Amino acid sequence: MAKIPESTIRRLSLYLRFLEAFDGEGARTVSSQALAERGGTTSAQVRKDLSLFGSFGKRGLGYSVPDLAVKLREILGIGVPRRVVVIGVGKIGMALVQYAGLAARGFTLERAYDVDPQVVGRRVASIVVRHADELERDLRRDPVDVAIIATPPGAAQETANRVGPSVRGILNFAPVTISAPEGVAVRHVNVELELEALGYALRTG
Amino acid sequence: MAKIPESTIRRLSLYLRFLEAFDGEGARTVSSQALAERGGTTSAQVRKDLSLFGSFGKRGLGYSVPDLAVKLREILGIGVPRRVVVIGVGKIGMALVQYAGLAARGFTLERAYDVDPQVVGRRVASIVVRHADELERDLRRDPVDVAIIATPPGAAQETANRVGPSVRGILNFAPVTISAPEGVAVRHVNVELELEALGYALRTG
Repeated sequence: MAKIPESTIRRLSLYLRFLEAFDGEGARTVSSQALAERGGTTSAQVRKDLSLFGSFGKRGLGYSVPDLAVKLREILGIGVPRRVVVIGVGKIGMALVQYAGLAARGFTLERAYDVDPQVVGRRVASIVVRHADELERDLRRDPVDVAIIATPPGAAQETANRVGPSVRGILNFAPVTISAPEGVAVRHVNVELELEALGYALRTG
Repeated sequence: MAKIPESTIRRLSLYLRFLEAFDGEGARTVSSQALAERGGTTSAQVRKDLSLFGSFGKRGLGYSVPDLAVKLREILGIGVPRRVVVIGVGKIGMALVQYAGLAARGFTLERAYDVDPQVVGRRVASIVVRHADELERDLRRDPVDVAIIATPPGAAQETANRVGPSVRGILNFAPVTISAPEGVAVRHVNVELELEALGYALRTG
Protein backbone atom coordinates (compact mmCIF):
# COMPACT_ATOMS: atom_id res chain seq x y z
CA MET A 1 0.00 0.00 0.00
CA ALA A 2 1.32 3.46 -0.91
CA LYS A 3 2.32 5.79 1.91
CA ILE A 4 -0.78 7.61 3.16
CA PRO A 5 -0.34 11.31 3.94
CA GLU A 6 -0.55 12.32 7.58
CA SER A 7 -3.39 14.72 6.76
CA THR A 8 -5.45 11.79 5.43
CA ILE A 9 -4.88 9.74 8.59
CA ARG A 10 -5.98 12.73 10.65
CA ARG A 11 -9.19 13.01 8.64
CA LEU A 12 -9.83 9.27 9.04
CA SER A 13 -9.61 9.79 12.83
CA LEU A 14 -12.18 12.55 12.53
CA TYR A 15 -14.49 10.49 10.32
CA LEU A 16 -14.34 7.72 12.92
CA ARG A 17 -15.34 10.16 15.62
CA PHE A 18 -18.29 11.39 13.54
CA LEU A 19 -19.32 7.80 12.79
CA GLU A 20 -19.29 7.08 16.53
CA ALA A 21 -21.53 10.12 17.02
CA PHE A 22 -23.86 9.06 14.17
CA ASP A 23 -23.96 5.57 15.68
CA GLY A 24 -24.91 7.06 19.06
CA GLU A 25 -27.76 8.88 17.31
CA GLY A 26 -28.97 5.56 15.88
CA ALA A 27 -28.06 6.27 12.24
CA ARG A 28 -27.36 3.13 10.18
CA THR A 29 -26.04 4.79 7.03
CA VAL A 30 -24.30 8.06 6.33
CA SER A 31 -23.52 9.91 3.11
CA SER A 32 -20.08 11.27 2.21
CA GLN A 33 -21.81 14.67 2.22
CA ALA A 34 -22.90 14.28 5.86
CA LEU A 35 -19.40 13.16 6.90
CA ALA A 36 -17.91 16.08 4.98
CA GLU A 37 -20.23 18.63 6.61
CA ARG A 38 -19.24 17.58 10.13
CA GLY A 39 -15.57 17.61 9.19
CA GLY A 40 -15.42 20.91 7.39
CA THR A 41 -14.32 19.19 4.18
CA THR A 42 -15.95 18.17 0.89
CA SER A 43 -17.74 14.95 -0.02
CA ALA A 44 -15.21 14.48 -2.84
CA GLN A 45 -12.42 14.56 -0.24
CA VAL A 46 -14.24 12.01 1.95
CA ARG A 47 -14.68 9.67 -1.01
CA LYS A 48 -11.06 10.13 -2.06
CA ASP A 49 -9.75 9.47 1.46
CA LEU A 50 -11.80 6.29 1.85
CA SER A 51 -11.07 5.03 -1.66
CA LEU A 52 -7.38 4.74 -0.71
CA PHE A 53 -8.31 1.78 1.45
CA GLY A 54 -10.74 -0.02 -0.80
CA SER A 55 -14.30 0.23 -1.93
CA PHE A 56 -16.86 1.23 0.68
CA GLY A 57 -20.39 2.42 0.40
CA LYS A 58 -22.90 2.19 -2.39
CA ARG A 59 -23.77 4.98 -4.77
CA GLY A 60 -26.99 6.58 -3.58
CA LEU A 61 -27.05 4.60 -0.32
CA GLY A 62 -23.97 5.98 1.40
CA TYR A 63 -21.82 4.13 3.89
CA SER A 64 -22.89 1.66 6.55
CA VAL A 65 -22.11 3.41 9.86
CA PRO A 66 -21.07 0.29 11.82
CA ASP A 67 -19.16 -1.33 8.92
CA LEU A 68 -17.22 1.81 8.08
CA ALA A 69 -16.41 2.37 11.78
CA VAL A 70 -15.02 -1.17 12.05
CA LYS A 71 -12.96 -0.65 8.92
CA LEU A 72 -11.56 2.70 10.12
CA ARG A 73 -10.64 1.22 13.51
CA GLU A 74 -8.82 -1.54 11.66
CA ILE A 75 -6.99 0.94 9.39
CA LEU A 76 -6.00 3.08 12.38
CA GLY A 77 -4.88 0.05 14.36
CA ILE A 78 -7.26 0.91 17.22
CA GLY A 79 -7.74 -1.81 19.77
CA VAL A 80 -4.50 -3.58 18.86
CA PRO A 81 -2.82 -3.83 22.27
CA ARG A 82 0.32 -1.65 22.62
CA ARG A 83 2.65 -1.74 25.61
CA VAL A 84 3.77 1.69 26.78
CA VAL A 85 6.27 3.31 29.12
CA VAL A 86 6.06 6.94 30.25
CA ILE A 87 9.34 8.79 30.83
CA GLY A 88 9.08 11.93 32.93
CA VAL A 89 6.44 11.96 35.67
CA GLY A 90 6.02 15.70 36.14
CA LYS A 91 2.65 17.45 35.68
CA ILE A 92 1.99 16.12 32.18
CA GLY A 93 3.50 12.68 32.78
CA MET A 94 1.45 12.27 35.96
CA ALA A 95 -1.74 13.18 34.10
CA LEU A 96 -0.86 10.67 31.36
CA VAL A 97 -0.19 7.85 33.81
CA GLN A 98 -3.68 8.43 35.21
CA TYR A 99 -5.31 9.03 31.81
CA ALA A 100 -8.01 6.47 31.02
CA GLY A 101 -7.95 7.39 27.33
CA LEU A 102 -4.69 5.48 26.89
CA ALA A 103 -6.27 2.15 27.79
CA ALA A 104 -9.41 2.99 25.79
CA ARG A 105 -7.24 3.24 22.65
CA GLY A 106 -5.42 -0.05 23.43
CA PHE A 107 -2.31 1.45 25.06
CA THR A 108 -1.38 -0.40 28.27
CA LEU A 109 0.94 1.44 30.63
CA GLU A 110 3.67 -0.95 31.77
CA ARG A 111 6.14 1.31 33.57
CA ALA A 112 6.96 4.95 34.32
CA TYR A 113 10.36 6.58 34.89
CA ASP A 114 11.75 9.74 36.39
CA VAL A 115 15.05 10.98 37.83
CA ASP A 116 13.65 13.07 40.68
CA PRO A 117 14.21 11.33 44.05
CA GLN A 118 10.88 12.83 45.21
CA VAL A 119 9.09 10.95 42.44
CA VAL A 120 11.07 7.71 42.00
CA GLY A 121 9.51 4.95 44.11
CA ARG A 122 6.18 6.75 44.35
CA ARG A 123 3.04 4.80 43.45
CA VAL A 124 0.88 6.42 40.75
CA ALA A 125 -2.28 4.65 39.68
CA SER A 126 -1.22 0.97 39.71
CA ILE A 127 2.50 1.42 39.07
CA VAL A 128 5.61 2.42 41.01
CA VAL A 129 7.79 5.04 39.30
CA ARG A 130 11.24 3.63 38.50
CA HIS A 131 14.55 5.46 38.13
CA ALA A 132 15.38 6.43 34.54
CA ASP A 133 18.80 4.76 34.94
CA GLU A 134 16.93 1.43 34.67
CA LEU A 135 15.32 2.37 31.35
CA GLU A 136 17.53 0.60 28.79
CA ARG A 137 18.03 -2.52 30.92
CA ASP A 138 14.27 -2.80 31.51
CA LEU A 139 13.53 -2.32 27.81
CA ARG A 140 15.96 -5.06 26.80
CA ARG A 141 14.51 -7.44 29.38
CA ASP A 142 10.86 -6.57 28.79
CA PRO A 143 10.28 -4.65 25.54
CA VAL A 144 7.40 -2.26 24.88
CA ASP A 145 5.94 -0.78 21.71
CA VAL A 146 5.72 2.89 22.57
CA ALA A 147 7.61 5.38 24.74
CA ILE A 148 5.76 8.49 25.85
CA ILE A 149 8.27 11.27 26.53
CA ALA A 150 7.19 13.92 29.03
CA THR A 151 10.61 15.05 30.20
CA PRO A 152 11.86 18.64 30.37
CA PRO A 153 12.73 19.91 26.88
CA GLY A 154 16.48 19.53 27.32
CA ALA A 155 16.20 15.80 28.03
CA ALA A 156 13.73 14.85 25.30
CA GLN A 157 16.09 14.10 22.39
CA GLU A 158 18.52 12.14 24.57
CA THR A 159 15.59 10.12 25.94
CA ALA A 160 14.38 9.43 22.39
CA ASN A 161 17.85 8.21 21.42
CA ARG A 162 17.99 5.94 24.46
CA VAL A 163 14.63 4.27 23.79
CA GLY A 164 15.11 4.29 19.98
CA PRO A 165 16.61 0.81 19.61
CA SER A 166 13.81 -0.77 21.67
CA VAL A 167 10.52 0.88 20.65
CA ARG A 168 8.57 1.39 17.43
CA GLY A 169 6.76 4.57 18.37
CA ILE A 170 7.31 7.71 20.44
CA LEU A 171 4.66 10.17 21.56
CA ASN A 172 6.45 13.36 22.58
CA PHE A 173 4.87 15.87 24.98
CA ALA A 174 8.09 17.75 25.71
CA PRO A 175 7.86 21.27 24.22
CA VAL A 176 10.59 20.65 21.64
CA THR A 177 10.66 18.78 18.38
CA ILE A 178 12.68 15.62 18.44
CA SER A 179 14.25 13.78 15.55
CA ALA A 180 13.01 10.26 15.06
CA PRO A 181 15.49 7.49 15.80
CA GLU A 182 15.77 5.14 12.83
CA GLY A 183 12.68 3.03 12.28
CA VAL A 184 10.68 4.80 15.00
CA ALA A 185 7.43 6.72 14.37
CA VAL A 186 7.30 9.98 16.32
CA ARG A 187 4.18 12.03 17.06
CA HIS A 188 4.12 15.31 18.94
CA VAL A 189 1.47 16.75 21.22
CA ASN A 190 2.67 20.29 21.32
CA VAL A 191 0.68 23.34 22.34
CA GLU A 192 3.30 25.71 20.92
CA LEU A 193 3.10 24.21 17.43
CA GLU A 194 -0.68 24.56 17.46
CA LEU A 195 -0.46 28.15 18.68
CA GLU A 196 1.87 28.91 15.79
CA ALA A 197 -0.42 27.23 13.28
CA LEU A 198 -3.30 29.28 14.68
CA GLY A 199 -1.19 32.42 14.51
CA TYR A 200 -0.56 31.70 10.85
CA ALA A 201 -4.26 31.16 10.18
CA LEU A 202 -5.14 34.45 11.90
CA ARG A 203 -2.49 36.31 9.93
CA THR A 204 -3.91 35.25 6.58
CA GLY A 205 -7.58 35.09 7.58
CA MET B 1 -0.84 34.01 -1.96
CA ALA B 2 -2.02 30.46 -2.62
CA LYS B 3 -3.35 28.42 0.28
CA ILE B 4 -0.42 26.79 2.07
CA PRO B 5 -0.94 23.19 3.22
CA GLU B 6 -1.13 22.60 6.96
CA SER B 7 1.79 20.17 6.74
CA THR B 8 3.98 22.96 5.33
CA ILE B 9 3.05 25.34 8.14
CA ARG B 10 3.91 22.62 10.64
CA ARG B 11 7.33 22.17 9.04
CA LEU B 12 7.92 25.93 9.09
CA SER B 13 7.29 25.84 12.86
CA LEU B 14 9.88 23.09 13.15
CA TYR B 15 12.42 24.93 10.98
CA LEU B 16 11.99 27.96 13.22
CA ARG B 17 12.69 25.85 16.29
CA PHE B 18 15.85 24.44 14.67
CA LEU B 19 16.95 27.93 13.65
CA GLU B 20 16.51 29.07 17.26
CA ALA B 21 18.70 26.14 18.33
CA PHE B 22 21.33 26.91 15.65
CA ASP B 23 21.25 30.54 16.76
CA GLY B 24 21.83 29.44 20.35
CA GLU B 25 24.87 27.49 19.15
CA GLY B 26 26.24 30.63 17.50
CA ALA B 27 25.71 29.53 13.89
CA ARG B 28 25.24 32.40 11.42
CA THR B 29 24.26 30.38 8.34
CA VAL B 30 22.61 27.02 7.84
CA SER B 31 22.19 24.79 4.78
CA SER B 32 18.88 23.30 3.67
CA GLN B 33 20.59 19.94 4.25
CA ALA B 34 21.28 20.76 7.92
CA LEU B 35 17.68 21.95 8.44
CA ALA B 36 16.41 18.81 6.73
CA GLU B 37 18.51 16.49 8.87
CA ARG B 38 17.16 17.92 12.12
CA GLY B 39 13.62 17.75 10.80
CA GLY B 40 13.68 14.25 9.38
CA THR B 41 12.91 15.59 5.90
CA THR B 42 14.90 16.26 2.72
CA SER B 43 16.80 19.35 1.62
CA ALA B 44 14.58 19.48 -1.49
CA GLN B 45 11.51 19.66 0.79
CA VAL B 46 13.08 22.45 2.86
CA ARG B 47 13.87 24.47 -0.28
CA LYS B 48 10.39 23.84 -1.67
CA ASP B 49 8.68 24.88 1.60
CA LEU B 50 10.67 28.09 1.85
CA SER B 51 10.34 28.95 -1.84
CA LEU B 52 6.56 29.29 -1.34
CA PHE B 53 7.23 32.49 0.57
CA GLY B 54 9.93 34.05 -1.59
CA SER B 55 13.59 33.73 -2.31
CA PHE B 56 15.83 33.04 0.68
CA GLY B 57 19.41 31.89 0.91
CA LYS B 58 22.20 31.83 -1.62
CA ARG B 59 23.36 28.83 -3.56
CA GLY B 60 26.40 27.37 -1.82
CA LEU B 61 26.08 29.74 1.16
CA GLY B 62 22.84 28.51 2.71
CA TYR B 63 20.42 30.61 4.71
CA SER B 64 21.20 33.38 7.17
CA VAL B 65 20.06 32.00 10.54
CA PRO B 66 18.80 35.31 12.02
CA ASP B 67 17.24 36.57 8.76
CA LEU B 68 15.39 33.33 8.07
CA ALA B 69 14.18 33.19 11.71
CA VAL B 70 12.77 36.72 11.43
CA LYS B 71 11.07 35.82 8.15
CA LEU B 72 9.54 32.61 9.58
CA ARG B 73 8.26 34.45 12.66
CA GLU B 74 6.65 36.97 10.32
CA ILE B 75 5.08 34.21 8.17
CA LEU B 76 3.76 32.41 11.25
CA GLY B 77 2.46 35.63 12.74
CA ILE B 78 4.50 35.12 15.93
CA GLY B 79 4.71 38.12 18.18
CA VAL B 80 1.60 39.75 16.70
CA PRO B 81 -0.46 40.39 19.85
CA ARG B 82 -3.61 38.23 20.10
CA ARG B 83 -6.25 38.66 22.77
CA VAL B 84 -7.51 35.37 24.21
CA VAL B 85 -10.25 34.01 26.44
CA VAL B 86 -10.18 30.54 28.01
CA ILE B 87 -13.50 28.74 28.44
CA GLY B 88 -13.48 25.87 30.90
CA VAL B 89 -11.17 26.18 33.89
CA GLY B 90 -10.80 22.52 34.84
CA LYS B 91 -7.42 20.78 34.96
CA ILE B 92 -6.37 21.68 31.43
CA GLY B 93 -7.92 25.16 31.45
CA MET B 94 -6.25 25.96 34.77
CA ALA B 95 -2.87 24.86 33.39
CA LEU B 96 -3.45 27.02 30.29
CA VAL B 97 -4.37 30.10 32.30
CA GLN B 98 -1.06 29.74 34.14
CA TYR B 99 0.93 28.75 31.02
CA ALA B 100 3.71 31.24 30.27
CA GLY B 101 4.06 29.89 26.72
CA LEU B 102 0.86 31.70 25.70
CA ALA B 103 2.36 35.12 26.38
CA ALA B 104 5.69 34.07 24.84
CA ARG B 105 3.88 33.44 21.53
CA GLY B 106 2.00 36.74 21.70
CA PHE B 107 -1.29 35.45 23.17
CA THR B 108 -2.54 37.66 26.00
CA LEU B 109 -5.11 36.10 28.29
CA GLU B 110 -7.93 38.58 28.83
CA ARG B 111 -10.61 36.53 30.61
CA ALA B 112 -11.52 32.99 31.68
CA TYR B 113 -14.96 31.42 32.07
CA ASP B 114 -16.53 28.43 33.77
CA VAL B 115 -19.99 27.36 34.99
CA ASP B 116 -18.88 25.60 38.19
CA PRO B 117 -19.80 27.74 41.25
CA GLN B 118 -16.63 26.41 42.94
CA VAL B 119 -14.54 27.97 40.17
CA VAL B 120 -16.45 31.12 39.15
CA GLY B 121 -15.13 34.12 41.07
CA ARG B 122 -11.85 32.42 41.87
CA ARG B 123 -8.61 34.28 41.09
CA VAL B 124 -6.18 32.35 38.85
CA ALA B 125 -2.92 34.01 37.94
CA SER B 126 -3.96 37.65 37.42
CA ILE B 127 -7.59 37.11 36.44
CA VAL B 128 -10.88 36.31 38.14
CA VAL B 129 -12.89 33.48 36.52
CA ARG B 130 -16.21 34.75 35.17
CA HIS B 131 -19.49 32.87 34.67
CA ALA B 132 -19.91 31.48 31.15
CA ASP B 133 -23.34 33.14 30.98
CA GLU B 134 -21.43 36.43 30.52
CA LEU B 135 -19.47 35.13 27.53
CA GLU B 136 -21.37 36.58 24.55
CA ARG B 137 -22.08 39.90 26.24
CA ASP B 138 -18.41 40.29 27.20
CA LEU B 139 -17.28 39.38 23.69
CA ARG B 140 -19.56 41.99 22.11
CA ARG B 141 -18.39 44.67 24.54
CA ASP B 142 -14.70 43.76 24.45
CA PRO B 143 -13.79 41.48 21.53
CA VAL B 144 -10.88 39.04 21.49
CA ASP B 145 -9.08 37.21 18.67
CA VAL B 146 -8.99 33.66 19.99
CA ALA B 147 -11.11 31.43 22.22
CA ILE B 148 -9.40 28.49 23.88
CA ILE B 149 -11.97 25.80 24.60
CA ALA B 150 -11.19 23.45 27.47
CA THR B 151 -14.73 22.44 28.40
CA PRO B 152 -16.01 18.88 28.85
CA PRO B 153 -16.47 17.20 25.44
CA GLY B 154 -20.24 17.59 25.41
CA ALA B 155 -20.04 21.39 25.71
CA ALA B 156 -17.28 22.05 23.17
CA GLN B 157 -19.31 22.44 19.98
CA GLU B 158 -21.94 24.62 21.62
CA THR B 159 -19.17 26.81 23.06
CA ALA B 160 -17.59 27.08 19.60
CA ASN B 161 -20.92 28.14 18.14
CA ARG B 162 -21.40 30.75 20.87
CA VAL B 163 -17.98 32.36 20.36
CA GLY B 164 -18.02 31.88 16.58
CA PRO B 165 -19.46 35.28 15.62
CA SER B 166 -16.91 37.12 17.79
CA VAL B 167 -13.53 35.41 17.34
CA ARG B 168 -11.26 34.54 14.41
CA GLY B 169 -9.56 31.50 15.92
CA ILE B 170 -10.36 28.63 18.28
CA LEU B 171 -7.84 26.33 19.95
CA ASN B 172 -9.74 23.28 21.13
CA PHE B 173 -8.45 21.08 23.96
CA ALA B 174 -11.73 19.25 24.56
CA PRO B 175 -11.36 15.60 23.51
CA VAL B 176 -13.78 15.88 20.60
CA THR B 177 -13.48 17.35 17.16
CA ILE B 178 -15.49 20.50 16.62
CA SER B 179 -16.72 21.96 13.38
CA ALA B 180 -15.42 25.41 12.63
CA PRO B 181 -17.97 28.22 12.77
CA GLU B 182 -17.89 30.20 9.53
CA GLY B 183 -14.74 32.25 9.08
CA VAL B 184 -13.08 30.85 12.20
CA ALA B 185 -9.80 28.89 12.15
CA VAL B 186 -9.89 25.89 14.48
CA ARG B 187 -6.89 23.96 15.78
CA HIS B 188 -7.04 20.93 18.02
CA VAL B 189 -4.65 19.79 20.73
CA ASN B 190 -5.87 16.28 21.10
CA VAL B 191 -4.02 13.37 22.65
CA GLU B 192 -6.48 10.86 21.22
CA LEU B 193 -5.90 11.94 17.63
CA GLU B 194 -2.15 11.61 18.12
CA LEU B 195 -2.54 8.18 19.71
CA GLU B 196 -4.55 7.08 16.68
CA ALA B 197 -1.98 8.45 14.26
CA LEU B 198 0.71 6.59 16.19
CA GLY B 199 -1.40 3.43 16.15
CA TYR B 200 -1.63 3.73 12.39
CA ALA B 201 2.14 4.21 12.07
CA LEU B 202 2.80 1.14 14.24
CA ARG B 203 0.37 -0.94 12.25
CA THR B 204 2.16 -0.28 8.96
CA GLY B 205 5.72 0.04 10.30
